[in-house]
Amino acid sequence: MSIRIGIVGYGNLSRGVESAVRQNDDLELCAVFTRRDPESLKIRTQGVPVVSVNEIEGWKDKIDVLVICGGSATDLPEQTPKYASMFNVIDSFDTHAKIPQHFENVDRAAKAAGKVGIISIGWDPGMFSLLRMVSTAVLPEGKNYTFWGKGVSQGHSDAIRRIEGVVDARQYTIPVQSAVDAVRSGETPDFTARQQHLRECFVVAEEGADKARIEKEIKEMPNYFADYDTTVHFISAEELKAEHSGLPHGGFVIRSGKTGFDKENKHIIEYNLKLDSNPEFTGSVIAAYARAAYKLNSEGVCGCKTIFDIPVSYLSALSPEELRRTLL
Amino acid sequence: MSIRIGIVGYGNLSRGVESAVRQNDDLELCAVFTRRDPESLKIRTQGVPVVSVNEIEGWKDKIDVLVICGGSATDLPEQTPKYASMFNVIDSFDTHAKIPQHFENVDRAAKAAGKVGIISIGWDPGMFSLLRMVSTAVLPEGKNYTFWGKGVSQGHSDAIRRIEGVVDARQYTIPVQSAVDAVRSGETPDFTARQQHLRECFVVAEEGADKARIEKEIKEMPNYFADYDTTVHFISAEELKAEHSGLPHGGFVIRSGKTGFDKENKHIIEYNLKLDSNPEFTGSVIAAYARAAYKLNSEGVCGCKTIFDIPVSYLSALSPEELRRTLL
Repeated sequence: MSIRIGIVGYGNLSRGVESAVRQNDDLELCAVFTRRDPESLKIRTQGVPVVSVNEIEGWKDKIDVLVICGGSATDLPEQTPKYASMFNVIDSFDTHAKIPQHFENVDRAAKAAGKVGIISIGWDPGMFSLLRMVSTAVLPEGKNYTFWGKGVSQGHSDAIRRIEGVVDARQYTIPVQSAVDAVRSGETPDFTARQQHLRECFVVAEEGADKARIEKEIKEMPNYFADYDTTVHFISAEELKAEHSGLPHGGFVIRSGKTGFDKENKHIIEYNLKLDSNPEFTGSVIAAYARAAYKLNSEGVCGCKTIFDIPVSYLSALSPEELRRTLL
Repeated sequence: MSIRIGIVGYGNLSRGVESAVRQNDDLELCAVFTRRDPESLKIRTQGVPVVSVNEIEGWKDKIDVLVICGGSATDLPEQTPKYASMFNVIDSFDTHAKIPQHFENVDRAAKAAGKVGIISIGWDPGMFSLLRMVSTAVLPEGKNYTFWGKGVSQGHSDAIRRIEGVVDARQYTIPVQSAVDAVRSGETPDFTARQQHLRECFVVAEEGADKARIEKEIKEMPNYFADYDTTVHFISAEELKAEHSGLPHGGFVIRSGKTGFDKENKHIIEYNLKLDSNPEFTGSVIAAYARAAYKLNSEGVCGCKTIFDIPVSYLSALSPEELRRTLL
């Protein structure tokens, strides 16, 4: 008997989850819920119904874990607590500053319903958080560094697209190599944003648009670009499609710490991801934690959980005995 | 109130644990237990008693977690179950093939006593196991690689020292760079032992010893060296002390996997350790899991646990709220 998965939404991340579910024999996609007209939406997996979110309550006994693939700004703060009152749920909420509030809301709803809600799953927050936390506990005297890229930032790409005269854009976040080398060698510098990451933009402008003005608007955009060394390349729509249509990403978390009676020994822990597809990897992490949500709830656990609260054995389809025999 | 730690044994690993305990404000070293004459043993931490292991039972109410630093071949299979009947215990049992049996023995003793026993903690088994397991669950279609080094293998160094005419020796395990590069690039080759690691030996020979014979004995030693490309350097005792007295180690676990409806996207997860001191890093991992043993038992948990069974939040002195706010 498979674990029955439902997905809310059908963007890049949902398709990543859909693809991941197919790679796990014990998971089965049972429905995709949409705010659009279900008739208008065609999904990749044959035979799986597309259902209006308005009908989701009727699926309470037909779904074991609901994966909520909305945006962190407005969708998830509302959706995750709401659906946690009906289903075991999982999301990839990534507004770090608002995690405590989101946790409380999901915890209250999930406990009242006797369900499990797992929040902030993916790679950052997610796998990077796990590694930051474990490495900090293991090397209490030290410093954490997180580098992102080289990869496409969808938020920064969207910000460029909102500028007048821009047809399309793709933004790459790139670690500064000298900063990476310093940290890997055991130095523990303090970096400004500019010293740690570069931003490279590929922009398709409207015909006749003022490229100098667009470039200036990008480079001076507060929060997104003003604090970074940013380069802007204007290219054709064809070139953007041919060279920049993927969603690769990655990055690394490094903890640099010291041990010894005289703090004489240095240690570097690095966790490094190179991802051809950001949404498919994120979807794969979510699929493993969806399994955990089901297993936890089957044991009577309820409430909100994060990646810090869940024994990793719950991520696997293997039994504890098999895990000890093959992977310990 | 601190978590009261006891250590059995006083070799390199014990000193690593002793050093780690000093770096954690909520841990306190209360006693070191030895099979030697306690009078003959001087430890680094002032004011902490050295006690004969024969008197260990009298410390049942004075120690929260006992760290057992014996060898995996003969000490731990006997000691860990024995002491799990009196204390929460933790060990670094590393004979992979015998973990299932060791788990059963510790589980039985710990459950009978209402204690927690955590086994096989360190970096391999330990952190590397955690990463292998999580990465395998996240990318179910893929392949795991473990590279060790560059670092000192104490077992291989000891094996050389047992050869006639050898005064002292130090063996470095070194990953083959072309193998590393292939795996990092996303290839998934099958390696022989020889294709994945080199062995480099620094040997101090007795005056007048037959160096050619020693070199031949090393290179042909079954299990340890025969399956590897091994280089042997004869050096002076002074040079060994000056250049090779540390115990650096490290290595990396890589999972190479694929996702996508047509398996068209590659992903590389790498966890990489560069350690100036193998025993101090291992001791630091053990210290964090000693905290977990205490916290688990305080909640009424008992029995044998591995790194797969313990939520990582238990490793930290921070509260779940603080962890969510600062590290998620």
